[in-house]
Amino acid sequence: MRTGTATQRAEKESFRPGIGCSNVGGVTRWTMSPEQIPSAWFNVAPHLSAPLQPPLHPATREPVGPDDLAPLFPMALIGQEVSTELWIDIPGEVLDILRLWRPTPLVRAVRLERELDTPARIYFKDESVSPAGSHKPNTAVAQAYYNQAEGIARLTTETGAGQWGTALSFACAQFDLDLQVYMVRASFEQKPYRKVAMQTWGGAVVPSPVDDPGHPGSLGAAISDAVRDAVGRADTHYALGSVLNHVLLHQTVIGLEAREQLEMAGERLPDVVIAPCGGGSNLGGITFPFVPEEGVRLLAVEPTSCPTLTQGRFDYDFGDVAGLTPLLPMYTLGHDFVPPPIHAGGLRYHGDSAIISALVRDGRMEAVAYPQNKVFEAAMQFTRAEGKLPAPEAAHAVRAAVDEALAAKETGEEKVILFNYSGHGLLDLGAYEDYLAGRLPDE
Amino acid sequence: MRTGTATQRAEKESFRPGIGCSNVGGVTRWTMSPEQIPSAWFNVAPHLSAPLQPPLHPATREPVGPDDLAPLFPMALIGQEVSTELWIDIPGEVLDILRLWRPTPLVRAVRLERELDTPARIYFKDESVSPAGSHKPNTAVAQAYYNQAEGIARLTTETGAGQWGTALSFACAQFDLDLQVYMVRASFEQKPYRKVAMQTWGGAVVPSPVDDPGHPGSLGAAISDAVRDAVGRADTHYALGSVLNHVLLHQTVIGLEAREQLEMAGERLPDVVIAPCGGGSNLGGITFPFVPEEGVRLLAVEPTSCPTLTQGRFDYDFGDVAGLTPLLPMYTLGHDFVPPPIHAGGLRYHGDSAIISALVRDGRMEAVAYPQNKVFEAAMQFTRAEGKLPAPEAAHAVRAAVDEALAAKETGEEKVILFNYSGHGLLDLGAYEDYLAGRLPDE
Repeated sequence: MRTGTATQRAEKESFRPGIGCSNVGGVTRWTMSPEQIPSAWFNVAPHLSAPLQPPLHPATREPVGPDDLAPLFPMALIGQEVSTELWIDIPGEVLDILRLWRPTPLVRAVRLERELDTPARIYFKDESVSPAGSHKPNTAVAQAYYNQAEGIARLTTETGAGQWGTALSFACAQFDLDLQVYMVRASFEQKPYRKVAMQTWGGAVVPSPVDDPGHPGSLGAAISDAVRDAVGRADTHYALGSVLNHVLLHQTVIGLEAREQLEMAGERLPDVVIAPCGGGSNLGGITFPFVPEEGVRLLAVEPTSCPTLTQGRFDYDFGDVAGLTPLLPMYTLGHDFVPPPIHAGGLRYHGDSAIISALVRDGRMEAVAYPQNKVFEAAMQFTRAEGKLPAPEAAHAVRAAVDEALAAKETGEEKVILFNYSGHGLLDLGAYEDYLAGRLPDE
Repeated sequence: MRTGTATQRAEKESFRPGIGCSNVGGVTRWTMSPEQIPSAWFNVAPHLSAPLQPPLHPATREPVGPDDLAPLFPMALIGQEVSTELWIDIPGEVLDILRLWRPTPLVRAVRLERELDTPARIYFKDESVSPAGSHKPNTAVAQAYYNQAEGIARLTTETGAGQWGTALSFACAQFDLDLQVYMVRASFEQKPYRKVAMQTWGGAVVPSPVDDPGHPGSLGAAISDAVRDAVGRADTHYALGSVLNHVLLHQTVIGLEAREQLEMAGERLPDVVIAPCGGGSNLGGITFPFVPEEGVRLLAVEPTSCPTLTQGRFDYDFGDVAGLTPLLPMYTLGHDFVPPPIHAGGLRYHGDSAIISALVRDGRMEAVAYPQNKVFEAAMQFTRAEGKLPAPEAAHAVRAAVDEALAAKETGEEKVILFNYSGHGLLDLGAYEDYLAGRLPDE
């Protein structure tokens, strides 16, 4: 491509060796400039086949109103919870922080495709590049912003494996908010690194349940602790990392960017969009902007040990163990269900987002469940092919994507698969160690 | 910015909410498309004020020739080691893998600037976004490629904290090479997660020294183990993660991209370029493309506990403990020097790259040393301001950048500071725990 002597070249090119002239396999990763971040969230509510059933007050069982929620959330978020607007503008202060890592890349997993010898084209949206290593900061930043804007000085929250607590610690540091994290005691003791990450960003962390030091804890119990703390102080609100409508709304930047990037990659629409499902926030984030496209299949992936969508019942249930939260219409295993301690801690929740539940009930979204070893088998295959090491939660989506690609191989179909790579597994290497040593319980 | 009803907007905009219209602080992160990756490495050798002194054979003390190195390295890398070409093309197969994460972002640390109340503009090049979480894969991929191209089936290497072993495991997985990693025994036992990461990518890992199970090990001893293994087998070569000319050459993509991105940010040239220095590879990578620009200061940052550039002598010395490697002309503390077990494991090397050493000796590059607690103090400030958690090695550059910015505050100078954010600290949270608990030895 170049001519002339080396010296002439150096003078002429003046430190610009030019763009890749020996491109062997073509571009397989699509980035966008921080200026191209979506400036509005996509509200899926007006696109549902019927309005959602309202949340009910835990005591009266009457629909809750804004005043019932005001001790916990700022009015802006309460408004988003019930909004029927199609688009909701993202405040500039929020965009400015999201731009530290967004838009995230869309990647085509060509090495994995080759390994599987599939005619399918597999794309993943890489949410692992955020400061906290997952999609969670997308909503943490927005929640911290609205709370600070309404004069709140302190937030409380719960965290299981630690992803959400890490993300909210990061976000609170950006808006000078104090943060109290109630961490499931078993994780507090087993995952000291997550605790340190939260402390490094300035969050205070205590094990939960606070009143029973002998109890290993659960997400539902930690929510009870955090809510009790928040309702007791006027300067304090509560923040939830999944399940609620406004949380899933904030995650729709994932799917909006992915639509743009698929176009850049020359695809019209994906045939199937796949994401892991705990409470439903990363799943909602990537799938909601595709809900209006009837030809696009939407697929939730959950662990067989906590099979809310595949085995749960659709009913009103509490979000927490103590019954302090409103009753939500959702698929649930019962609010006192305690799943086994699988490594995908973010998928160990007894219920699901009301919107996700409605989409599954109405047949717009499918769900599938996998046991741990099948999930890690696919994660290993992905890691060696693509170089990225998925969090156990994200590995559930990898498993389903691999199975979709293998099905396409049977039928010869050039299927376009999109999945959400919701987080990296660099703080979950203990799980890989267990898998490599063959001591992962197959549940 | 938008007009019409929500429905009209949705129809009109068709899932394109448009680009950020409520930009509060402006763009502070510059990305480039994978197509804009540099297609050639920048060779600094022809830009040095005098040719480098040659490496000497450990037995004869005569200059080594290509044949002496052939049992360890492929001919392509031996050629790069002594090349005087200004530019060396990057093979397409290497570019294709680098494009999985390159070009990496250039970020302006506006929040840190505000915190410091400095007129300086602080930019960092974010090498933490690679699969292995540091700059190391830039050369690991190239080395794996050239070895495979010359028919080699297996590589050996050493690793201290584990960053290099992780990167080479990733790279070998891409080219179907077997890898044997000799890991400093103290790290092997204290950092099980790093070991698991290597195994997940397929690398085999054993503690070093192999012949003395009671010894905690050192980088120099692990190099001896890896070299001994490689010279004993015809199908096996050795790979080094720093120090050698070809390794630093491969890292120059960092500085080449940074130059382009600084221009995108509206800067002509930086006033100072800063990077941590262990063997010198991330330092060389970001600084070499600025060597010909006389007005640009270049600054190496090292730990006071392993002060090669600030306290060492310039002399020929071995790269390893056993004296198996060629003698290199460099700043050294003596090849039997064992630094204390500081958390910045990647900076615990008794010597430095010959090129870095020559630049410092000739006054083209400066060097400064910091004790651990000063380094972590700056790391905490950076983390809470910018949201990213630096590896202890990268935190050395953060410390120096903060000090340069504070000096600019004194003088009122609008200085442009560029530093290399060489890796994230998500597998180093134990170090942060020690710092937060006040139990970090101040050495």
